[in-house]
Amino acid sequence: MRHLFLAAVAASLAIPSHAQQAEPPSPGEIVAAAPDESWIAIAPTDLLVMDLASDAKGQPRRVIIQLMPAPFSQGWIDNIRKLAAAHWWDGTAVTRVQDNYVAQWGDPTEAKPLPEGLTAVPESAYVVDAKTAADWSAARAMHVSAPVIADPYASSQALWGWPIAHGENGEIWPVHCYAMVGVGRNMSPDTGSGAELYTVIGHAPRHLDRNIALVGRVVSGIEHLSSLPRGTGPLGVYERADERVPILSIRLASDLPAAQRPRFEYLSTESESFARYADARANRRDAFFIRPAGGADICNIPVPIRPAAQK
Amino acid sequence: MRHLFLAAVAASLAIPSHAQQAEPPSPGEIVAAAPDESWIAIAPTDLLVMDLASDAKGQPRRVIIQLMPAPFSQGWIDNIRKLAAAHWWDGTAVTRVQDNYVAQWGDPTEAKPLPEGLTAVPESAYVVDAKTAADWSAARAMHVSAPVIADPYASSQALWGWPIAHGENGEIWPVHCYAMVGVGRNMSPDTGSGAELYTVIGHAPRHLDRNIALVGRVVSGIEHLSSLPRGTGPLGVYERADERVPILSIRLASDLPAAQRPRFEYLSTESESFARYADARANRRDAFFIRPAGGADICNIPVPIRPAAQK
Repeated sequence: MRHLFLAAVAASLAIPSHAQQAEPPSPGEIVAAAPDESWIAIAPTDLLVMDLASDAKGQPRRVIIQLMPAPFSQGWIDNIRKLAAAHWWDGTAVTRVQDNYVAQWGDPTEAKPLPEGLTAVPESAYVVDAKTAADWSAARAMHVSAPVIADPYASSQALWGWPIAHGENGEIWPVHCYAMVGVGRNMSPDTGSGAELYTVIGHAPRHLDRNIALVGRVVSGIEHLSSLPRGTGPLGVYERADERVPILSIRLASDLPAAQRPRFEYLSTESESFARYADARANRRDAFFIRPAGGADICNIPVPIRPAAQK
Repeated sequence: MRHLFLAAVAASLAIPSHAQQAEPPSPGEIVAAAPDESWIAIAPTDLLVMDLASDAKGQPRRVIIQLMPAPFSQGWIDNIRKLAAAHWWDGTAVTRVQDNYVAQWGDPTEAKPLPEGLTAVPESAYVVDAKTAADWSAARAMHVSAPVIADPYASSQALWGWPIAHGENGEIWPVHCYAMVGVGRNMSPDTGSGAELYTVIGHAPRHLDRNIALVGRVVSGIEHLSSLPRGTGPLGVYERADERVPILSIRLASDLPAAQRPRFEYLSTESESFARYADARANRRDAFFIRPAGGADICNIPVPIRPAAQK
């Protein structure tokens, strides 16, 4: 494994060695050693399972999305659950892939009627207001807090399992990190229904924070979106219908037979293990590194997620 | 173009409108309006032309890399020019693609002899020391300065055409933004020869700054690397030889016949237009945005690059 710049990590994955015992643990080693009680199961009602058409080699392509919990973006997420229950996305497609930005999916005809009962969510819901944020903070038993990080956009913190920014006025809002899922919209005051979704496949486009709703993140299969050919139209739109990637179905995991439900869990951002992981991400002390950065931005401290044992 | 979340930009590209005249210009509009004298031609000796094997549809895949100027990383860049002159990369391959991280290329056999005359560059060259940085600053006629941005890693600034961080001790060093190109290495004190290269295809991995040499950036064709299938081995290494993407050739543009040389130019980071562009990236006032971020990180203010007219 010469000339791989993360040779040290490869070695730690593949080759047990006595030497590595003496080294400070890498972020991955800290996560691997986290006790089971630091992991939180994701409810099947919070997992969205998207099956794309098989790839050119006939391999299935499944993308699994975790929806955000209250108090974030619940109006759009209610719509998304209704769209999934109505099987609305079946037969739609990935329509746009823009390099270093987003992959987007929805109805390419822009004419498919939406199901009854969707809500038009106000722009004010892009953020959680100060009182609601304070109430939720008070209601949650907080154990260990991840560090608050100041950056050119806002103060931010891994909170309740998600990358969250804090405004000086007490508002909080989710952050456009890699793999986060958001809601396409038209010009203001439209806020989108949730029928048109995108995920971030490049450097965090933080200028979109507070301008567009975030509703979740891809927890498995992001590579089926991030490695798609880039569209050659404006904004990466696929110019020909045959370039689009068909969506076979999108379902809530809770609507799948119990034995077929994917199961995932995330590392509690309020755990001791997460605090150590965040510190190690900001100050790499494992053998490859000669000079720790001394800091990390919120999107470089992704919340660890892993498959859970089937029950 | 409904439900595209950057519908406003699409409209400005495609549909002349009187309404948009009254809007503050978008970053793209500022760049499009920059006077020709703000654009700096990239020398053919600073362009590396990589031709990958054609894709499955027979389409050519060309990736063009701009090498960094002095005082940055010149030891490795001298090696890279020698490797290109020796046609050393012809018949090598893209060997590793790790999602949200890097695509890497070089000799998969790890046994191909290197050409004579390569230099082993010391780790001290990961940064430019304070005196050298001060001398170069004094020698350059600086007109307008792009803003200095403090972030969790360092103060940073678009400088001399590149994303550059400043240390408190006066050192400066290049930053691992999307599409930047670096030098694979083994464990310290190895610093890599330049034969093994990678480019960033995800969120900026700033923890690598000062730990590994940066030598350039992809200025055209990044999608031929960023959209490759992710490798399934540790660190995204392709596990089977037939997954690798063959490299047909890598040449300096200056070694191509004059009529075949690609030509690019970048927007001077010391121009008035760049300062306005950086401000607009940090404070989006074009119609789509309802709440400007009030800041941007250095990697979200990419230096504009465009093809230049053939002479």
